[in-house]
Amino acid sequence: MASTIRIAVLGASGYTGADLVRLALTHPRAEIVALSANSKAGQTMAEVWPHFAMVPQLPRLVASEDVDFAGVDVVFGCLPHAASAQLLGSLTGPRIIDLSADFRLKDAATYADWYGGTHPAPMLLPEAVYGLTEFARDALPAARLVACPGCYPTAVLLALQPLLGEAVIGGDRITINALSGVSGSGRGLKEANLFPEVAEAVHPYAIGRHRHMPEIEQQLALAAGRAVTISFTPHLVPMNRGELVTCIVELTPGKAVAYLRHVLAEAYAIEPFVHLLPEGVAPATRMVRGSNHAVINVFADRVPGRAIVIAAIDNLVKGSSGQAIQNMNAMFGLPETLGLEAAPLFP
Amino acid sequence: MASTIRIAVLGASGYTGADLVRLALTHPRAEIVALSANSKAGQTMAEVWPHFAMVPQLPRLVASEDVDFAGVDVVFGCLPHAASAQLLGSLTGPRIIDLSADFRLKDAATYADWYGGTHPAPMLLPEAVYGLTEFARDALPAARLVACPGCYPTAVLLALQPLLGEAVIGGDRITINALSGVSGSGRGLKEANLFPEVAEAVHPYAIGRHRHMPEIEQQLALAAGRAVTISFTPHLVPMNRGELVTCIVELTPGKAVAYLRHVLAEAYAIEPFVHLLPEGVAPATRMVRGSNHAVINVFADRVPGRAIVIAAIDNLVKGSSGQAIQNMNAMFGLPETLGLEAAPLFP
Amino acid sequence: MASTIRIAVLGASGYTGADLVRLALTHPRAEIVALSANSKAGQTMAEVWPHFAMVPQLPRLVASEDVDFAGVDVVFGCLPHAASAQLLGSLTGPRIIDLSADFRLKDAATYADWYGGTHPAPMLLPEAVYGLTEFARDALPAARLVACPGCYPTAVLLALQPLLGEAVIGGDRITINALSGVSGSGRGLKEANLFPEVAEAVHPYAIGRHRHMPEIEQQLALAAGRAVTISFTPHLVPMNRGELVTCIVELTPGKAVAYLRHVLAEAYAIEPFVHLLPEGVAPATRMVRGSNHAVINVFADRVPGRAIVIAAIDNLVKGSSGQAIQNMNAMFGLPETLGLEAAPLFP
Amino acid sequence: MASTIRIAVLGASGYTGADLVRLALTHPRAEIVALSANSKAGQTMAEVWPHFAMVPQLPRLVASEDVDFAGVDVVFGCLPHAASAQLLGSLTGPRIIDLSADFRLKDAATYADWYGGTHPAPMLLPEAVYGLTEFARDALPAARLVACPGCYPTAVLLALQPLLGEAVIGGDRITINALSGVSGSGRGLKEANLFPEVAEAVHPYAIGRHRHMPEIEQQLALAAGRAVTISFTPHLVPMNRGELVTCIVELTPGKAVAYLRHVLAEAYAIEPFVHLLPEGVAPATRMVRGSNHAVINVFADRVPGRAIVIAAIDNLVKGSSGQAIQNMNAMFGLPETLGLEAAPLFP
Repeated sequence: MASTIRIAVLGASGYTGADLVRLALTHPRAEIVALSANSKAGQTMAEVWPHFAMVPQLPRLVASEDVDFAGVDVVFGCLPHAASAQLLGSLTGPRIIDLSADFRLKDAATYADWYGGTHPAPMLLPEAVYGLTEFARDALPAARLVACPGCYPTAVLLALQPLLGEAVIGGDRITINALSGVSGSGRGLKEANLFPEVAEAVHPYAIGRHRHMPEIEQQLALAAGRAVTISFTPHLVPMNRGELVTCIVELTPGKAVAYLRHVLAEAYAIEPFVHLLPEGVAPATRMVRGSNHAVINVFADRVPGRAIVIAAIDNLVKGSSGQAIQNMNAMFGLPETLGLEAAPLFP
Repeated sequence: MASTIRIAVLGASGYTGADLVRLALTHPRAEIVALSANSKAGQTMAEVWPHFAMVPQLPRLVASEDVDFAGVDVVFGCLPHAASAQLLGSLTGPRIIDLSADFRLKDAATYADWYGGTHPAPMLLPEAVYGLTEFARDALPAARLVACPGCYPTAVLLALQPLLGEAVIGGDRITINALSGVSGSGRGLKEANLFPEVAEAVHPYAIGRHRHMPEIEQQLALAAGRAVTISFTPHLVPMNRGELVTCIVELTPGKAVAYLRHVLAEAYAIEPFVHLLPEGVAPATRMVRGSNHAVINVFADRVPGRAIVIAAIDNLVKGSSGQAIQNMNAMFGLPETLGLEAAPLFP
Repeated sequence: MASTIRIAVLGASGYTGADLVRLALTHPRAEIVALSANSKAGQTMAEVWPHFAMVPQLPRLVASEDVDFAGVDVVFGCLPHAASAQLLGSLTGPRIIDLSADFRLKDAATYADWYGGTHPAPMLLPEAVYGLTEFARDALPAARLVACPGCYPTAVLLALQPLLGEAVIGGDRITINALSGVSGSGRGLKEANLFPEVAEAVHPYAIGRHRHMPEIEQQLALAAGRAVTISFTPHLVPMNRGELVTCIVELTPGKAVAYLRHVLAEAYAIEPFVHLLPEGVAPATRMVRGSNHAVINVFADRVPGRAIVIAAIDNLVKGSSGQAIQNMNAMFGLPETLGLEAAPLFP
Repeated sequence: MASTIRIAVLGASGYTGADLVRLALTHPRAEIVALSANSKAGQTMAEVWPHFAMVPQLPRLVASEDVDFAGVDVVFGCLPHAASAQLLGSLTGPRIIDLSADFRLKDAATYADWYGGTHPAPMLLPEAVYGLTEFARDALPAARLVACPGCYPTAVLLALQPLLGEAVIGGDRITINALSGVSGSGRGLKEANLFPEVAEAVHPYAIGRHRHMPEIEQQLALAAGRAVTISFTPHLVPMNRGELVTCIVELTPGKAVAYLRHVLAEAYAIEPFVHLLPEGVAPATRMVRGSNHAVINVFADRVPGRAIVIAAIDNLVKGSSGQAIQNMNAMFGLPETLGLEAAPLFP
């Protein structure tokens, strides 16, 4: 029988941590050996989460510093930024998959600019693999520390990275409109996230200054081989899960939308989780709810020389915990789809 | 390698049929060999359903009469009532799991009363096994025809059947309040189910005359060994999935709520899908979303001599397609949980 | 020109207080002269509330103890219980309309039982008028202190009070199922009220011990002239506003549903806000959203001798702030509908 | 006493028609004398609409051709395009406020391109006043035929028209992302608008080819005095009401965001319904729900030379029926705010 991967989830009282546990529960090779949540240490997952009411066998929550990492093969960090790097920076035994923002930006100064503080473990930045799985496969098997992309960057990069890599679109005037479900804001107590504040309404937030902007630009620039600038406006939508990005791009002179389509079709031809939709079909979050899938499509704009590239993911799965599992699979030499086979939930 | 169960789903363009396909897709022993939908014959499932956009390999939809039943081991009927019995009544080869109402009521006259027409295949009624899996296990392995319970009956029977079976509650004054998500109304075009008619609102329907009433009474009477009458009022709640029943019952003189708790604990002690919650924890649909689980609890009422028994399920899974798969597993000698292991989706 | 009623709203940072301000803004005789909110003192209403962004002329929020009551004609108390009686008990000048629970129960011991503390101003209980406007009209013009009913009591009493008053239903076995939108839980920071916890889900709460139970029983007993006991189970529904109660009642022997209909028709024949719907039409919260209207209907149950009485209101309007305005109108000799004429908002 | 304006609403069984009736019911000068709805002729509004259950005095619905226009002062056309112009083109008596698309585009050929058919009444196009009230005031008092703007154009034009009029932004690279509630899709029976298809999800539609595009470009070009091209992508959001547009614009060289702010502040300084929010406050649909208000703000983008202009309205009110009433007020010499004073509904 195949050996088990013993996992610890730090920050299991947040939505990201809970979704990791949800997926790990049916992963045929994962065994959850430790769960931490400082504010809820001592409680069971069944007490903290409604959907684990029937899963009494999960380890009890402990404070992060009380986790025994000795028997752990891989640690999933679902902690707030800064706290994450502080704790993970001191770990020497297990491999690390971090879902916080701490190891995504390669430049500690940029991190300080956007996250407001000195990076707690800058010496680890060079080592961290940026874990957009489809583009990180070569590095993952040997990686000790993987930084999972943010949810918005995941959707945007899947849509645009191949196009910039092939230079079929320009990098100067990319306009991204983004829509996210409320789980993306976390489980912290904020008046702004109460049901009556959010339901039956929509609004933009972090206009012109969302922290995922430098991350997107960093990765697009790497693909393009030159600097890239984006306009990026996220909006909060009254739904639990789901993320959709609508990117208005400028075609490289001489390139047509059909060629963009060709580039994306090539890039994702054999991907299990990334799907270029048939011509004319609009990506929708309902296509991927609860699953690790991403759907993408490209459309001609009425304005000559422009195209519209759209991608949809589940922010908690491909945008976070599902991709983390996918990365774990790649790191441990397993099929990437292991434990992630469930079809989307609709309606 | 274990042999495959070849399945056909009739009525795959409805929510119930689609959820069956969703579950069957990752069932390790099921192979979907035929899908029917008369109104959408000729289309692919990816054209008909957003969440199958990335599953191009499913069989194309055909008209029900064009299904080749020769190579089919089990047929899942997700057709409207009457149409279901008409078609299934003529099948001789495969085993049948019917999700319509046609084979649930044992008495053809009662069927005619409530469903408004002569039963199309009354000769099959004696043979049909009422497939509330937890109480039908003895009969399922040999069954040729299984009638899956309605969604409301599933929730109510799980809550009350053991209590009536042990005569710890009375059968004369049961009052059931029921809440359902909108998917329970089906995918047919009705103004009443348009988003703006339903969202941000709640209302009762079929007051005093819902078709699940005789079904509930039939099965409760069988458990009680005497006639049972219920008041039953369903309400439409602005959510996609989920069903919750709140049952006000009268204790048999001398019995206390603690004893009801004991009866339920015994009944479901080793059930994989039915869970008596810890004392004081309120069942909630978010505990079971997307899963085959049911959660139940019992509470003392302030009125002496009364108790409140509450159950929650996902109407499309344990209330319909999941239970159908669970029944298939039991019929074919497989572990009941096969293909149904996914944890609930929250948030 | 008619004189102005100068009003103060204490607790204007809660949903109830805000809805009072919303209604008062277009009331032709009301002038808002003071607004309090201890936790947000110093802020403007436009800073605290999105929908007052375009109403800059409202008074700035102050602490409750800093309100100058000298020039105030009527104080609306939207404070938490206990705090409300404490502050209002010391007021001598203005008339008082309290929307908290503090002056609803006539018996200080019952209050202590259910609200967990000695009543802060028991000497005022005899004076307080229970302000279910339709049944309090005689007392309102002279009242100094009015206790607005709770939201659930408002809906239940409108449905059942005339029936018990005419003794056409029994008072021993009333079963009430209640559904409420999330605004009923207030704007306080509770994890349970975050959007992802509530959306796409439903669950009961305060099972067998909701604080509105003794209030309902007190008022029904007054109408019946004898003790009344109720089973009452509230549920939280994913919508902002709206409340619906489904009451299963037992007919007095010899009385038929048609007669109950007659009693309700008589009771509400000329009421501007309470409407008996045509036979067979189910009350729905979407019928009354944002308005001070209530809709009621009565149905025969399948169980002989039982009837189902259903009522729907907007919990923040007829269930709270609208009824408070209606009471103010009655207290000051104005038409009850003044400032409350807006039709419901649908969709 | 002031005289009454007798109004007829054609198409009163749609959401737009119903919202017109809702507003007209409390308009102090309007009297509803006729309501038409071909598919529901013979029914009462209380039968067709839940929120008019308590308004039995409304005229019964008749077929449009059966309306007696003799005693009608103003007709509100809420019919589908083409049908609208066909009927309204033949009216000679009453003044006309059309809410369809038929009289918005000045060029019949453009109409034919986008709406797929010869214009039914091209001779009326020159006469029609484009009724974005804030910019049409000079023409409205004498107008016989007013074309109410589409909902998206209303929001976009309020945001951008002053900026293009003052040439502080360019007209070549305007990118508009738009979000709308489901009521914008109408009450017709479409599978795509069923609750379970829309709830808990988001998706774009009409990508690159929405019919409001030429209307927006026409009006922006008029303001700019030169051609304007826009990229425009609408998305469907799971909410009943509300519309939000996020416009990425390029600053005219030498102009700063502060100056854009100044232009908007000047343009709307004394407007009762259009509000420039304080610096940094994000427009949100919850600020305007159920009301005729619009909120706007402008933000610097991180990309130098770009700005983000955002506007929110209620699509059924300022985006449709409310603006129609506002236009009626202007046409008949009444204060524009008459009947539209209600504050937004939140939550």
